Amino acid sequence: MKKIAIQGVKGCFHHAAVSKYFEGCNYKLMECSSFRELAIAVAKSNVDIGVMAIENSIAGTILTNYSLLSEYNLKIVGEVYMPIQHYLMAYPGQNIEDIKEIYSHPMAILQCELFIDAHPYIKISEYSDTAAAAKYISVCKKKGLAAIASENAAQEYGLEIIFKNIQTITNNFTRFFIIKNCYKQKNDYFNKASLIFKILHTTGSLSQILSLISSLGINMTKIQSIPIIQRPWEYSFYVDIIFNNIRDYEKMKKRIQKIPCLHQLSIMGEYKNGRIRS
Amino acid sequence: MKKIAIQGVKGCFHHAAVSKYFEGCNYKLMECSSFRELAIAVAKSNVDIGVMAIENSIAGTILTNYSLLSEYNLKIVGEVYMPIQHYLMAYPGQNIEDIKEIYSHPMAILQCELFIDAHPYIKISEYSDTAAAAKYISVCKKKGLAAIASENAAQEYGLEIIFKNIQTITNNFTRFFIIKNCYKQKNDYFNKASLIFKILHTTGSLSQILSLISSLGINMTKIQSIPIIQRPWEYSFYVDIIFNNIRDYEKMKKRIQKIPCLHQLSIMGEYKNGRIRS
Repeated sequence: MKKIAIQGVKGCFHHAAVSKYFEGCNYKLMECSSFRELAIAVAKSNVDIGVMAIENSIAGTILTNYSLLSEYNLKIVGEVYMPIQHYLMAYPGQNIEDIKEIYSHPMAILQCELFIDAHPYIKISEYSDTAAAAKYISVCKKKGLAAIASENAAQEYGLEIIFKNIQTITNNFTRFFIIKNCYKQKNDYFNKASLIFKILHTTGSLSQILSLISSLGINMTKIQSIPIIQRPWEYSFYVDIIFNNIRDYEKMKKRIQKIPCLHQLSIMGEYKNGRIRS
Repeated sequence: MKKIAIQGVKGCFHHAAVSKYFEGCNYKLMECSSFRELAIAVAKSNVDIGVMAIENSIAGTILTNYSLLSEYNLKIVGEVYMPIQHYLMAYPGQNIEDIKEIYSHPMAILQCELFIDAHPYIKISEYSDTAAAAKYISVCKKKGLAAIASENAAQEYGLEIIFKNIQTITNNFTRFFIIKNCYKQKNDYFNKASLIFKILHTTGSLSQILSLISSLGINMTKIQSIPIIQRPWEYSFYVDIIFNNIRDYEKMKKRIQKIPCLHQLSIMGEYKNGRIRS
């Protein structure tokens, strides 16, 4: 049975991402209390796979997670996109009038701003994790207290859902990477790759690289520049590309190395595109 | 006297950014408890200027703050880069052996991971804000409790610094925007601009735009793609550019509008580059 490490406890959004990506598979979950613990588990223990949030359409990219992948030499072997839907849940047999306080993660609280504003008499308290808040209510059989968490969390901890979809922005999603210790990576079918490279900041150097990519019919789905702290005029770029033909991608990898301003190109992973074209 | 709105209380990093950017000026600070409150203050009250964190070299861009600028029709009129240095501070007359608990913001706690690991007997508790933690200790004259906050906070609240520069990564900086209600904006000298535009995701469309920019000798200092949630194959881009000659920039603005795949170009601000070339 596969052993899969996640950040958070059962019922959290990472767990939901695992359920979607590994639907129909048997696996054992390992709960990690931080992203670093997750990276270490995948790099150094007997965990087969890790699932790690990398960006949210509202909050942006978790840059520190890219750093963890580099630091622990982990490879991206897949991706999954999850809509973020928040539910208000409590110990069974209560309704909204019974709720005096809500526990949740600060990000979830922010994402449910309008719902919270509409219930000004309820005290809001920050909690380390959405699902952990649900677990606390369940284990302690707390009444008068509700959690904002995923539908999964309500099922996992036997709580009753009082309100569905209380997030302010309804089309919010989080992208998760499926990660492996690079020594365990196998090259299956892939049509997407995540690259990181540095370029010296001369006018037109990035444009030269993107021209090469587009001349081969390769599409870019993400680009993000990161200033290099100690060298203010050099930049790192995180770039995701998708392609129909692996040969075009192989050509790109050869030709891109010859561009003089580019250095330290690293392939963070080659995997199957997880986003469905609507 | 200028009225300047910040996110956080006196002594926070926003306050330090104000002190640096408006050195030698007289101003009155308005403390806001959230970024939204700050945006509303600048847009709708008698506040002249707002100072708003936009990105950190480790944690990345605060995308939601770009959204607030658009939502409240605010313009960027300047920028300032601040090194993030954390200090451990407590009520005077104590040393590290007296400290049983530390209060700070979760981000600051993360940034001081190694220091915290080296003091495992001290309990760590999350607090809404670094400077607010320092204020709490000062107001309540709490002993045995320390805060992780800026040097500014120690001065502001009369606390004693126990340890300096306890952050794990020493070259961490945060970039702050100086923002105004757009009706109050004046066009002074500028050599930098922040743009947002959308492009239809066809191969090479971004490369076409960047080629135009570089052909005019204009340098890009930031690029970040944001998927548009309801249209998965369209992207927004945040792009910062710097230029020596305003005429090149004016040419670019005219020519870029004629690129068919680009739409909804908006100039978020034109301002003086705040980053010194080392």
